[in-house]
Amino acid sequence: MRRQFIFLVALLVMTLTASAQGFFAPSVNSPDIAKDGTVTFKVKAPGADTVKLIIDTRVDTLMKRQGNDSWSITLRDLEPDLYMYYYVIDGMKVLDNENAHTLRDVKNVMNIFVLDPKGNCPMAVHDVPHGEVRAVWYDSPTLGTKRRMMIYLPPGYDQSRQRYPVLYLLHGTGGDETVWLEQGCTAQILDNLIASGEAEPMIVVMPNGNVDEQAASSMSEKGNVQPSFSHKNWMDGTFEQSFNDIMNWVDNNYRTRAAKRYRAIAGLSMGGYHSLYISANQPDDFAYVGLFSPAISRMDQGKSKIYDDLEAKLVAQFKQRPKLYWMGIGDKDFLYNDNAEFRQLLDKNRLRYTYHESGAGHEWANWRDYLVIFTQLIFK
Amino acid sequence: MRRQFIFLVALLVMTLTASAQGFFAPSVNSPDIAKDGTVTFKVKAPGADTVKLIIDTRVDTLMKRQGNDSWSITLRDLEPDLYMYYYVIDGMKVLDNENAHTLRDVKNVMNIFVLDPKGNCPMAVHDVPHGEVRAVWYDSPTLGTKRRMMIYLPPGYDQSRQRYPVLYLLHGTGGDETVWLEQGCTAQILDNLIASGEAEPMIVVMPNGNVDEQAASSMSEKGNVQPSFSHKNWMDGTFEQSFNDIMNWVDNNYRTRAAKRYRAIAGLSMGGYHSLYISANQPDDFAYVGLFSPAISRMDQGKSKIYDDLEAKLVAQFKQRPKLYWMGIGDKDFLYNDNAEFRQLLDKNRLRYTYHESGAGHEWANWRDYLVIFTQLIFK
Repeated sequence: MRRQFIFLVALLVMTLTASAQGFFAPSVNSPDIAKDGTVTFKVKAPGADTVKLIIDTRVDTLMKRQGNDSWSITLRDLEPDLYMYYYVIDGMKVLDNENAHTLRDVKNVMNIFVLDPKGNCPMAVHDVPHGEVRAVWYDSPTLGTKRRMMIYLPPGYDQSRQRYPVLYLLHGTGGDETVWLEQGCTAQILDNLIASGEAEPMIVVMPNGNVDEQAASSMSEKGNVQPSFSHKNWMDGTFEQSFNDIMNWVDNNYRTRAAKRYRAIAGLSMGGYHSLYISANQPDDFAYVGLFSPAISRMDQGKSKIYDDLEAKLVAQFKQRPKLYWMGIGDKDFLYNDNAEFRQLLDKNRLRYTYHESGAGHEWANWRDYLVIFTQLIFK
Repeated sequence: MRRQFIFLVALLVMTLTASAQGFFAPSVNSPDIAKDGTVTFKVKAPGADTVKLIIDTRVDTLMKRQGNDSWSITLRDLEPDLYMYYYVIDGMKVLDNENAHTLRDVKNVMNIFVLDPKGNCPMAVHDVPHGEVRAVWYDSPTLGTKRRMMIYLPPGYDQSRQRYPVLYLLHGTGGDETVWLEQGCTAQILDNLIASGEAEPMIVVMPNGNVDEQAASSMSEKGNVQPSFSHKNWMDGTFEQSFNDIMNWVDNNYRTRAAKRYRAIAGLSMGGYHSLYISANQPDDFAYVGLFSPAISRMDQGKSKIYDDLEAKLVAQFKQRPKLYWMGIGDKDFLYNDNAEFRQLLDKNRLRYTYHESGAGHEWANWRDYLVIFTQLIFK
């Protein structure tokens, strides 16, 4: 016992030398989530004039001074969800040193918390069977390179001989193969919905939609390259043309049900655009299509044959009766009008789709919700 | 083209509204790594009196003011490696908003960069075949729960029918199943050493050594629980007694060579202590043992039968001639004397081990190096 005490004290001293603060049990518990879902943030900022709390697009508020060096704020009535936040102290972005959980959105690192007061938020980890997450490297003959993607396998995959349907799930501009698992909470959502019987067991394939990247920048050979919104061969048809490399590799390496009836494609923003054009150009491949705030741009004709003759392609695609063509968008999304125009095109041709309009804008709170909705509708 | 421009501008405006800074292409390139390995840090801190740069235990220095609001410092002669750093601005820990790459050490989040000026640092991602990383959940009948662990599979595993040797790689107090992949760079190190032929292709199994956790706190059902050094059933024999659950699950679910000759166990700090006792109690299971700065404590007798009669167990273990019994420690490690005492015990009994003494203390720079050395010595 005495030795172990000395061991812990030694670790403490050694680590405090190396680290100004934040290494050990928090001096304040923040964010402090009460059982009723009330969330209290506390931060020490000696000498600061103003301290702000920013929670994704949902909260932007001044905190209140408490005593000499502390600031605090309590929020009520937040919806169960994943939240990303940071502080702005006298104009400078600062993370919460009391909270070790962070995520990156493009190149912005933020703290996170999951609000789940009733234990039923699909984005939270629950006591249910968990699927497996794999980071794999596949060959892309079209792009002439190895590339990384993430695969979610449903609970029991490794212990069964069953074949499973596949959802291809695509990210937006600024994302990469990791983002649907991180901000998207894909593994938690699928674990929870499969356990409750609300979604069918399925494989989810999350490739990297930036064709100039082999992998997320954290896994780049180029070293300290920073994630960015701008990429070569951006929305020029190259990703769509290389998509069969992904499908072939998945069908060759996993126990998939390799037929249209058991294949879905969905994506957010740029990934919605990719999903739209991949499914329109490959009408025999996907029975289910999900467009989440898709970055629809009807000015792309001529840029690649992938984008030519969209209307005729859609008519041909719908002639084969996709089981579900699902669109979701927030009423404050800057792409709202482009999406409305696209719906007019579908309406004009009497092509039947499911439309879900939510509040809010072009943001992850919507895309997680859309995934929760969409995954309950497919493969049934 | 015009629409795409509008799209990007809209994204920009929308995101800037939500985020004070840091979202887009950096305003300054920091850390700026020159081809000769010189690293320059730049930070904007208007109104600050002092700005410090802390790089793990290696650098703790004031930065120099440049103009009105910027601070800078250039470092030379750093060794190729992974580095973790942060700033201290007027006494407050602040991350580098120009660098999206961060890692967590226990509950301390820091920025990282990999220094690889000659393209031969084993901790960097190189253009070599990449193995697969899996996050899996296994049953532990002994602990009565499902638990998460990480598995590295060598390049080509999924495409071959070959069986592979297995290295069980254990973390320290404060770590979890993710830490050997993150600070430990295990996937990069194995990819690089297997590609060069310096290490044999092997499976690496990274379990969670905190028996009161099902998984890293980021995957906890308890929500916003923060990672910590303190755990129930800490070094009391429970983890060691449940270790066969891990080995059985791995041998049942992977193409292992399930024999002593093809099994290694190694760990850092608490994980070195676990490796010592698991291998001593199971002398038929491991031909290779690696103790990386092991948290040896010879006062544990009586706490669990796992820790009783160590000397006799070691004599019995060495009678069966392990192929390698490897120990590494830094000459400034606070566990140095405990390790010297343990070596005396081995020497007294004429038990043959390999001893590696490095500089520095109880830290990741050593443990990454030890992994690079150890993985080149096993399964040959």
